[in-house]
Amino acid sequence: MNIQLLRESVEKWIDDYFKGKSEKNSKNFEAMSYSIKVGGKRVRPILMLLTYGMYKEDYRDILPFAAALEMIHTYSLIHDDLPCMDNDDLRRGKPTNHKIYGEAIAVLAGDGLLNEAMVIMLDQCLDGNLNTIKASNIIAKASGAEGMIAGQICDILSEGMKISEEKLLYMHKNKTGELIKAAVVCGATLGNADETDLCYLKEYGDKLGLAFQIKDDILDVIGDVAILGKNTKSDEFNNKTTFITMYGLEKCKQKCNDLTQECFKILKQIKVNTKYLEEITESLLRREY
Amino acid sequence: MNIQLLRESVEKWIDDYFKGKSEKNSKNFEAMSYSIKVGGKRVRPILMLLTYGMYKEDYRDILPFAAALEMIHTYSLIHDDLPCMDNDDLRRGKPTNHKIYGEAIAVLAGDGLLNEAMVIMLDQCLDGNLNTIKASNIIAKASGAEGMIAGQICDILSEGMKISEEKLLYMHKNKTGELIKAAVVCGATLGNADETDLCYLKEYGDKLGLAFQIKDDILDVIGDVAILGKNTKSDEFNNKTTFITMYGLEKCKQKCNDLTQECFKILKQIKVNTKYLEEITESLLRREY
Repeated sequence: MNIQLLRESVEKWIDDYFKGKSEKNSKNFEAMSYSIKVGGKRVRPILMLLTYGMYKEDYRDILPFAAALEMIHTYSLIHDDLPCMDNDDLRRGKPTNHKIYGEAIAVLAGDGLLNEAMVIMLDQCLDGNLNTIKASNIIAKASGAEGMIAGQICDILSEGMKISEEKLLYMHKNKTGELIKAAVVCGATLGNADETDLCYLKEYGDKLGLAFQIKDDILDVIGDVAILGKNTKSDEFNNKTTFITMYGLEKCKQKCNDLTQECFKILKQIKVNTKYLEEITESLLRREY
Repeated sequence: MNIQLLRESVEKWIDDYFKGKSEKNSKNFEAMSYSIKVGGKRVRPILMLLTYGMYKEDYRDILPFAAALEMIHTYSLIHDDLPCMDNDDLRRGKPTNHKIYGEAIAVLAGDGLLNEAMVIMLDQCLDGNLNTIKASNIIAKASGAEGMIAGQICDILSEGMKISEEKLLYMHKNKTGELIKAAVVCGATLGNADETDLCYLKEYGDKLGLAFQIKDDILDVIGDVAILGKNTKSDEFNNKTTFITMYGLEKCKQKCNDLTQECFKILKQIKVNTKYLEEITESLLRREY
């Protein structure tokens, strides 16, 4: 499977979806669409499609789910960037949603993307297939008050404070990890993977999510602003506890490598061919943005 | 069916639900719970339970749906009250969410309530019953970017402007009407009502939602602040087009009465006993808050 093709397929699916929407309501869909279109690595939908592809032939069958997941991720960024939250002006090298549309529309564009993701999944559920319902349920829980939002709340409440290692891990497990794990587990669920594989993939998703966040913190310190499309050292500036302030740069690099090796080990236990997941795991470790 | 009992049942269901949630994440659930607990008429869940009761015996079977709907309504109020939106300090006689918890937590409490409502419905969907999935789908669409959020966007974009009658009707049909209609239609869907009844109930829901909003605008002008628990004439203060500025007070009262009569006429066409819906329609017209 070609990663670039998967990325473009998800982007085209979302683009087509928004194109079909009512004109009366154009400002809302314009704002929702803006933050999708400024780009991104599309890590979550790609992980979902690659995992599904280990069990079923045609990744296009689950594009609505991949799109819904990316919409949820995007809504979280819009709300995260708001002046009352991280107050970021720049995201992926472009002005953030509220910088273009104002805060009120940005709040509603975020609400709209979250809600629309649920609509897309519930439309799929009308097929009555239990795996479809299970996958929707997994995503909704991962993004919810006991998943991603719990991590965001923890982040807000920890600002300007030194927090414990346990709390830092809890925060990122929820804020970043849950959606990454959900991407993998949903891909497998929709592909009708058996319970043993699902169990391994949950473990893999947990470790991958953690490696991903540590790498993010590393890039925040040593990354190239032009490649990242956002300001580096923002965490330091915001006086946040990060994996770098917790472990130091070298230990972070080591942890990232170790977690990646552990990911490979888990993937080896899975019955089907995991080549593509191995490749993306490696590339997420090596990434420069 | 006793309205007070229905109201208490929904409130107890939500209270129990939040009680079961993780302690690590207590601030989030506290903020979510706060805005539920400040009260409200619970019009939407009560309408749902009453409609379900026309077809099935035990309203308690669908309390999760009634609760989810009230959580969606509450999230919309939290976001609506934010400084970047209506900037309201008072709701139901109590400080608004952001006045207690700050803007960041208020945004996330709103996100959390919307997401949690979807989780609750998707948990119900795991029963594989098509009516359950349909009802979840109806609610998700009613609250979404082509439903309630479309109305809110329209409201934001119309602030300080004179808008056309068509636009005013579009705004309220979406902002208020869609969730009220969804309450009725979902109650019937979950009760396995036939297509003819569903068709009548959609029409009834549309008219009831409009009557409800016109009555709200009337109360904003002539209501008692102490009974309403919010400041009156806020729309005038915000320089908004309302049904009062559009039609004048007397014509609004007349429209409210006419719509209520039309509601009764529609209910008469329905095969089952509609006594409770007639009563609540009448009481929503007569209400003082």
